[in-house]
Amino acid sequence: MFQLRTDLALEAREIYQEEKNEEIPGVAIDNEEIGDVIVTRVEVLDDEGAQIIGKPRGKYITLESASLRKADADFKDEMSKLLAKELKAILPKKNNIKVLVVGLGNWDVTPDALGPKVVSKVFVTRHLFKLYNKEDDVDVSEVSAISPGVMGTTGLETSEVVKGIVENSRPDIVIVVDALASRKMERVNSTIQISTTGITPGSGLGNKRKALDEGNLGVPVIAIGVPTVVDAATLTSDTIERVIDAFSRQAKVGSQFYNMLKELREEEKYDLIREILEPYSANIIVTPKEVDEIIVNLSQIIANGINIAVHPGIDLKDVNRYIH
Amino acid sequence: MFQLRTDLALEAREIYQEEKNEEIPGVAIDNEEIGDVIVTRVEVLDDEGAQIIGKPRGKYITLESASLRKADADFKDEMSKLLAKELKAILPKKNNIKVLVVGLGNWDVTPDALGPKVVSKVFVTRHLFKLYNKEDDVDVSEVSAISPGVMGTTGLETSEVVKGIVENSRPDIVIVVDALASRKMERVNSTIQISTTGITPGSGLGNKRKALDEGNLGVPVIAIGVPTVVDAATLTSDTIERVIDAFSRQAKVGSQFYNMLKELREEEKYDLIREILEPYSANIIVTPKEVDEIIVNLSQIIANGINIAVHPGIDLKDVNRYIH
Amino acid sequence: MFQLRTDLALEAREIYQEEKNEEIPGVAIDNEEIGDVIVTRVEVLDDEGAQIIGKPRGKYITLESASLRKADADFKDEMSKLLAKELKAILPKKNNIKVLVVGLGNWDVTPDALGPKVVSKVFVTRHLFKLYNKEDDVDVSEVSAISPGVMGTTGLETSEVVKGIVENSRPDIVIVVDALASRKMERVNSTIQISTTGITPGSGLGNKRKALDEGNLGVPVIAIGVPTVVDAATLTSDTIERVIDAFSRQAKVGSQFYNMLKELREEEKYDLIREILEPYSANIIVTPKEVDEIIVNLSQIIANGINIAVHPGIDLKDVNRYIH
Amino acid sequence: MFQLRTDLALEAREIYQEEKNEEIPGVAIDNEEIGDVIVTRVEVLDDEGAQIIGKPRGKYITLESASLRKADADFKDEMSKLLAKELKAILPKKNNIKVLVVGLGNWDVTPDALGPKVVSKVFVTRHLFKLYNKEDDVDVSEVSAISPGVMGTTGLETSEVVKGIVENSRPDIVIVVDALASRKMERVNSTIQISTTGITPGSGLGNKRKALDEGNLGVPVIAIGVPTVVDAATLTSDTIERVIDAFSRQAKVGSQFYNMLKELREEEKYDLIREILEPYSANIIVTPKEVDEIIVNLSQIIANGINIAVHPGIDLKDVNRYIH
Repeated sequence: MFQLRTDLALEAREIYQEEKNEEIPGVAIDNEEIGDVIVTRVEVLDDEGAQIIGKPRGKYITLESASLRKADADFKDEMSKLLAKELKAILPKKNNIKVLVVGLGNWDVTPDALGPKVVSKVFVTRHLFKLYNKEDDVDVSEVSAISPGVMGTTGLETSEVVKGIVENSRPDIVIVVDALASRKMERVNSTIQISTTGITPGSGLGNKRKALDEGNLGVPVIAIGVPTVVDAATLTSDTIERVIDAFSRQAKVGSQFYNMLKELREEEKYDLIREILEPYSANIIVTPKEVDEIIVNLSQIIANGINIAVHPGIDLKDVNRYIH
Repeated sequence: MFQLRTDLALEAREIYQEEKNEEIPGVAIDNEEIGDVIVTRVEVLDDEGAQIIGKPRGKYITLESASLRKADADFKDEMSKLLAKELKAILPKKNNIKVLVVGLGNWDVTPDALGPKVVSKVFVTRHLFKLYNKEDDVDVSEVSAISPGVMGTTGLETSEVVKGIVENSRPDIVIVVDALASRKMERVNSTIQISTTGITPGSGLGNKRKALDEGNLGVPVIAIGVPTVVDAATLTSDTIERVIDAFSRQAKVGSQFYNMLKELREEEKYDLIREILEPYSANIIVTPKEVDEIIVNLSQIIANGINIAVHPGIDLKDVNRYIH
Repeated sequence: MFQLRTDLALEAREIYQEEKNEEIPGVAIDNEEIGDVIVTRVEVLDDEGAQIIGKPRGKYITLESASLRKADADFKDEMSKLLAKELKAILPKKNNIKVLVVGLGNWDVTPDALGPKVVSKVFVTRHLFKLYNKEDDVDVSEVSAISPGVMGTTGLETSEVVKGIVENSRPDIVIVVDALASRKMERVNSTIQISTTGITPGSGLGNKRKALDEGNLGVPVIAIGVPTVVDAATLTSDTIERVIDAFSRQAKVGSQFYNMLKELREEEKYDLIREILEPYSANIIVTPKEVDEIIVNLSQIIANGINIAVHPGIDLKDVNRYIH
Repeated sequence: MFQLRTDLALEAREIYQEEKNEEIPGVAIDNEEIGDVIVTRVEVLDDEGAQIIGKPRGKYITLESASLRKADADFKDEMSKLLAKELKAILPKKNNIKVLVVGLGNWDVTPDALGPKVVSKVFVTRHLFKLYNKEDDVDVSEVSAISPGVMGTTGLETSEVVKGIVENSRPDIVIVVDALASRKMERVNSTIQISTTGITPGSGLGNKRKALDEGNLGVPVIAIGVPTVVDAATLTSDTIERVIDAFSRQAKVGSQFYNMLKELREEEKYDLIREILEPYSANIIVTPKEVDEIIVNLSQIIANGINIAVHPGIDLKDVNRYIH
């Protein structure tokens, strides 16, 4: 419970940089500012980089903007377009691509419902292709979408469910959408991460264990995630760090006090966190009060981004007005 | 749209009897009254019977009681126990049976949400068996449960989804729960049908096409269903029949009028039904106004029945109080 | 239960015309076709007209179009604009009008949830006027909105609740939104009725008894309603009529048969309806299967119509994109 | 935003005691342990006590138990009985009492939905008294219940709405149920507070401003509340305190370091909190991940407690089995 979790490659890199003051070897970084949005493209190039950053080799693209939390319709459209562009760049280059969208998470736990909510807004066509016995179409791709639920309510490992569906419906690619955890409150609901490596075990809010990745599913897996909570333990730990920093700035370097601050062991910090949070003895999360509304907005942005990226003849006007 | 649909073997037999005044050859019937409940066990014994009744060979048990629509807690308990007893009689006789419960239907369309609502109340344990690496337990069986959604929203044939999950999670048996259509308003929400033959194509409210049966899934399939609606076309057709009957009773046998009544062709009846319902041009259903509440009660009864039948150490007290 | 209900002035007039083959005295009618939409303005001018049509003196405007049931975004916009125009014509002519929108009906019974769903989409501003201590604004009026629930779940007469709120919040006008009953399937979800007379007792799906009108509330009341169901008894009765009509067309005028058909007493018809529906012994309604989705669309159209009509500076672009 | 909020009289007293090491003058305290539950009865006796504790004169009873967060059915029953007993002790002593239950909060924001969820489970009878024109009944009292929504979605001050309903429906007493804020994570979802003073301005999660109390409503008001969240600012502030305490224990009294710790001004603490939380710029709350399920359980306990306390002929067996 007191482990500091992050599902963002961006933050994993940040943690390394804060400690070592250097870039991670084997990891390439590219930054771009597009209007109000910071696009960061992290690529884990080799096994050393993967080991250090704690994420598999592949691409991790984050779109960051504090405006994501607001309901401004024009900005939402911009984000959908940006997301669609980044998605297209990593989708297989073929016509009539067959896509399965998988929404992870629990519909009944608000900050975990991002995946199921996106699935409910994806423009699904596969049954029409089957009904009319079509193989291809100029305007729409063959898209299916499912929310397999979470292990605690189905009793099934999510990867088993998705693997079975992939084997029987044979998509070219799987797009997995999930709620993530961040280590910083400022990234909550303001960051969309796209990656080519699927969802790695232990991530997200839930208890998913086997990876949803190409190795397990047999087809490429793109993951889209948004951190929707911070662990209470993370917030508590961050606060402790800040207090120590504040005192350190006031203490004379080398003084007994300064040394004491610097020597506060991880163990003692953990004892403090435990003392503060343990009485509750459950998964405690930090989240904005209006999380319900924010998840609705985010799911619209992501579903629209997917709809535009996968269907060649669908643009923003369509997704905003004709698809519900 | 104007086809008179029934998913109940009981009604299929009734239709035959009304026309022929005899029992269907190759079909055995057994009746029992238990308190307020009529239990009818129809067994389709051979192919001739199957052809006539329009249902595959196997057992069809119906529990009928008008009290099912009311929320009386004691009666609900009685029904759960009765259902559990009938279920146990057709479940494979083995210890530590592995069960997958599948809830068909659309969570967002009230009279079609019976299956998903049952799934949400089934006591699921499979993940605990996996977590603790157990093979068997004295009190609970290994149970998983999923609602795969409907083709119109997932783009996936339901049988593909369930087949994939069966192949990857390897249950001994699948229990499928679905909302059915009845041809008589009096059976709506007052009848539970259990069958050993799975769900046959074209049944239910939705657009399921491939059967969820042993042939397709590779393991035995028990189906549990409740008629939750009557087609508006069925109600209209019934009304026409009753009007003709009423006039016939008043007309002299052999009179021109009597003959006209008797000769009203099917075609003309259909023209009438079309004239009445066609302006709406959609699936029109007849349902009690309080269907939301009734579906909640029915899903509780069925989930409890399943919980008692499959878990050896769980009884009514447990399901009512400790499982939610 | 077997009373043929209609909440539409249009249908009340139709019934009279069918029987008498003449226009109702004291009732003025005006028709207009605007694109795909038929606008009918019925005005009950005097007490005689009110008595015959069974509705109080005042204006009843219906917008009818089968396209209302479909999700075409452009058509929805057209309807919102048309509705706004008709609403504006009957709203008090004053700046900075204070409006209370009341959504009648039960959120948990789908076809009855129209009112609460509209309320959830109305652009509410009254608290901001209070917060900033403003009396007027160029762009927005002072609008509040509430769904008081239904008597069966609150124990409170709806008119008591609304009267209390009106007395304490002092709006200039109340707009009441409710689901209605129609006598014809073809009008279900295809007709919006606006009236200046409030909601009369006994209307709607529920058990509302005291009128929500100017007499009871002390301020003018505009009612907006859509028939979302037909009573099963109405459908059954209609079917009986059609069967009799069909036979009548085939029988020789003056024959014994013809006379029998013509003489079928109301009482006998009711016996028939009772025989068909009574086994169920509950409120049975006829409704399209996709009623959930249709109610969402209708509530959007009506909420947008209200938003445009009451806020001087808000147009369609705003309601579609910035108000959720 | 950074104000440390508590709605619990218990905590207000605790804060005073921590600072002053004495009991608040004019405040009487009584403790009792009943099984797993600690019952604390705080009575604010005079104006001095009211001023210091920051709560009006009256009784504040808290039932505390960590078991409240778990779904054990037997414990839930015990709590309902305890709650009913404490409620009965402060309800007016008269037969056929008329009760209005008001559920404050926003149905759509999970930790704020406690009030509306309790209302949906209260056994409502007022309409039946009116329907049968009864004045009294041996088994049930005249109970009504409403969830007036929150100002942000209705535009109406909650007190205006409730006042109007009280004036028009004339109950003897109002019971208000609301979600509260606590200053300690350990009290979240483990404490029920009952008070005779209504809900004071600024409490709860929302933006309620005018008190729902006897002064405003004209009838006595009992408030029932459960802290369902902790402000993120409170958790952060607590953490800072604990860090300082930890260092203080290690520093020599009188040393420069010790003095620096003691002298850390409130202002600097606030700067720290702001630095940590401000990037998010919204209401941030700390809550258990499973808050949805916990709120369901708590609302059942409270609704049952009210049902038993107000209806003379209803006991636990009834509320658990016959009332939904």
